[in-house]
Amino acid sequence: MAALDLVTPVLSGGGTWRFPANEPLRLDSGGVIEGLEVAYQTYGQLNADKSNAVLICHALTMDQYVASPHPTTGKPGWWPRLVGPGKPLDPARHFIICSNVVGGCMGSTGPASTNPATGRPYGLSFPVITIGDMVRAQAMLVTALGVDTLFAVVGGSMGGMQVQQWAVDYPERMSSAVILASASRHSAQNIAFHEVGRQAIMADPDWRGGAYADHGVRPEKGLAVARMAAHITYLSEPALQRKFGRELQRDGLSWGFDADFQVESYLRHQGSSFVDRFDANSYLYITRAMDYFDIAASHGGVLANAFTRARHVRFCVLSFSSDWLYPTAENRHVVRALTAAGARAAFAEIESDKGHDAFLLDEPVMDAALEGFLASAERDRGLV
Amino acid sequence: MAALDLVTPVLSGGGTWRFPANEPLRLDSGGVIEGLEVAYQTYGQLNADKSNAVLICHALTMDQYVASPHPTTGKPGWWPRLVGPGKPLDPARHFIICSNVVGGCMGSTGPASTNPATGRPYGLSFPVITIGDMVRAQAMLVTALGVDTLFAVVGGSMGGMQVQQWAVDYPERMSSAVILASASRHSAQNIAFHEVGRQAIMADPDWRGGAYADHGVRPEKGLAVARMAAHITYLSEPALQRKFGRELQRDGLSWGFDADFQVESYLRHQGSSFVDRFDANSYLYITRAMDYFDIAASHGGVLANAFTRARHVRFCVLSFSSDWLYPTAENRHVVRALTAAGARAAFAEIESDKGHDAFLLDEPVMDAALEGFLASAERDRGLV
Repeated sequence: MAALDLVTPVLSGGGTWRFPANEPLRLDSGGVIEGLEVAYQTYGQLNADKSNAVLICHALTMDQYVASPHPTTGKPGWWPRLVGPGKPLDPARHFIICSNVVGGCMGSTGPASTNPATGRPYGLSFPVITIGDMVRAQAMLVTALGVDTLFAVVGGSMGGMQVQQWAVDYPERMSSAVILASASRHSAQNIAFHEVGRQAIMADPDWRGGAYADHGVRPEKGLAVARMAAHITYLSEPALQRKFGRELQRDGLSWGFDADFQVESYLRHQGSSFVDRFDANSYLYITRAMDYFDIAASHGGVLANAFTRARHVRFCVLSFSSDWLYPTAENRHVVRALTAAGARAAFAEIESDKGHDAFLLDEPVMDAALEGFLASAERDRGLV
Repeated sequence: MAALDLVTPVLSGGGTWRFPANEPLRLDSGGVIEGLEVAYQTYGQLNADKSNAVLICHALTMDQYVASPHPTTGKPGWWPRLVGPGKPLDPARHFIICSNVVGGCMGSTGPASTNPATGRPYGLSFPVITIGDMVRAQAMLVTALGVDTLFAVVGGSMGGMQVQQWAVDYPERMSSAVILASASRHSAQNIAFHEVGRQAIMADPDWRGGAYADHGVRPEKGLAVARMAAHITYLSEPALQRKFGRELQRDGLSWGFDADFQVESYLRHQGSSFVDRFDANSYLYITRAMDYFDIAASHGGVLANAFTRARHVRFCVLSFSSDWLYPTAENRHVVRALTAAGARAAFAEIESDKGHDAFLLDEPVMDAALEGFLASAERDRGLV
């Protein structure tokens, strides 16, 4: 990587970091993004020997607000089980970095940003990006924040894809890695569900071929339907049954198309609240990046080959028994490849009926596993 | 049931049967449909003692063309494994009846029909109907065709729900029953997926509050998205992986939002071809009927209580190991209740990676099971 003008590390808080003019982000597609901005949050302080930095990679619809209130919704950070005082990642001990992915809509350059070539929002003129592009931007941000080597790179779902990509592209810059509820490539069913969501967005006439911002409208209905379909895949059948079953909203059926069942009302709420905080084109681009993700493909079809430079990295991979989006078998496939590559990879399948979203929820066994793994990795790193 | 004017039984072919003026269809909602029409097909001839009649109940998007070409698509009948010369149900031996459900769009009265009160298409003024209403209309049709007692009532998926409803409401009019890949009530996840489909339809501005026919438009994009989401649930993850994996449509990625992956192209085709043969409002009404379906609810919450009058009926229940829409556990639940009610219920889970749609596909073990069961039931009935 070319030398960057180092900015003064922001030790607490966050902001938006703009790539230097002579350092465009070079994309896997062959394109570039000039003047890329990366919005990020940090928690805690970088220690004197710069050995306590942790990068958290977010999932599809998450953002940099891992441990602080979301500016739109006002909700607290999205990973309170993992990050916070007394938690496995603690701002008192760690310098925690979380940045909005390239293509996102929370401050990093994405399809809603202004295209410098036209002075108007990119829309579909934004280049298709990959998990590799997201990670490349993160690596440049981490450098700009004064960090050479990360103590840990951590993420679940699409965040776990980024962690794997880090291990492929920047293994020398990390000493441990946590991959939760993830996969090394998108399955046909994963792609199919994403395609339903994209078609729902593009079917909305307010999408306007992606140029809705120019028309002062938003494809809210299409995006809500996309979210509803996706949300079902984040849960499990038993959890839906336990939470909602066939419980009604009111006494008796409406004999119409109102939300009779609580699960309908819940889903509609998931859809309508999502559109308040997310951009439809970002949803298209980020789902596309996930569909394109296939680490083995660029390593002769052998996943282990991708990880050969990461043998010194300590990995922890966790799956959840009821996750049918990135099921245990997919996570185990990653662990086998890491092991075959000569890396140390701890693995556990955690019994849970909460489905894919379990990695964000109250799962004490996960908490304990992460605490134990990170504490051990800290000792290895000489942090404690 | 009140006496009906019997029409001359149509022994081969089919047509549309109109309820007599003094016999409206009384609905579970409390409403009525006057002058209901039921479109049906028959295959074979009713024998002298009227003991060889079989009713086939169709699934959500199927119709009466179980063994003859579909008038819109030109495709052959939808259940060639089960119905035809030399098949378990053979027009040479059986008088086979299949009718389009109430609320459907292939000739039976549904939301696209003319509302006699207004002279315009019903749209959302069509009453919400139930599986019970569908079965009540079938029973009146069967009577009109000169049949008192059916040798068998047969159906998969929503068809299997109708078979169960027959066993609850008209057990004295049947001697055997085949229930494939079905359930006694819709789970929260089943309802959730249907709600996504309905929201996709209603999000389409061409839906026009259900009155699209009055405006000369159709909510094709919304209906296509609904079909795409549903279609994923009809297959299995392993089948999608086996059929499509990550295979591309062309050499290399498009770096855009065209259908790069074969599974995307396949899904888009499923969506676009569906809108040519199905009505969006029918989709709303029939999915609603399925969501409302819950046999135990009207029998003190105990499913076995619903089947107590059906102890003389011989049942065959088959599930498919990779069906996650109506999984084996749901089918087993039906079998347990039938057994507890004192009925004879044969049950098998068939190993298949084809998912829910396996009941329509090439599954030799299913063919053998149905052939054996029906042959035995024919001997019991004295047909052979």
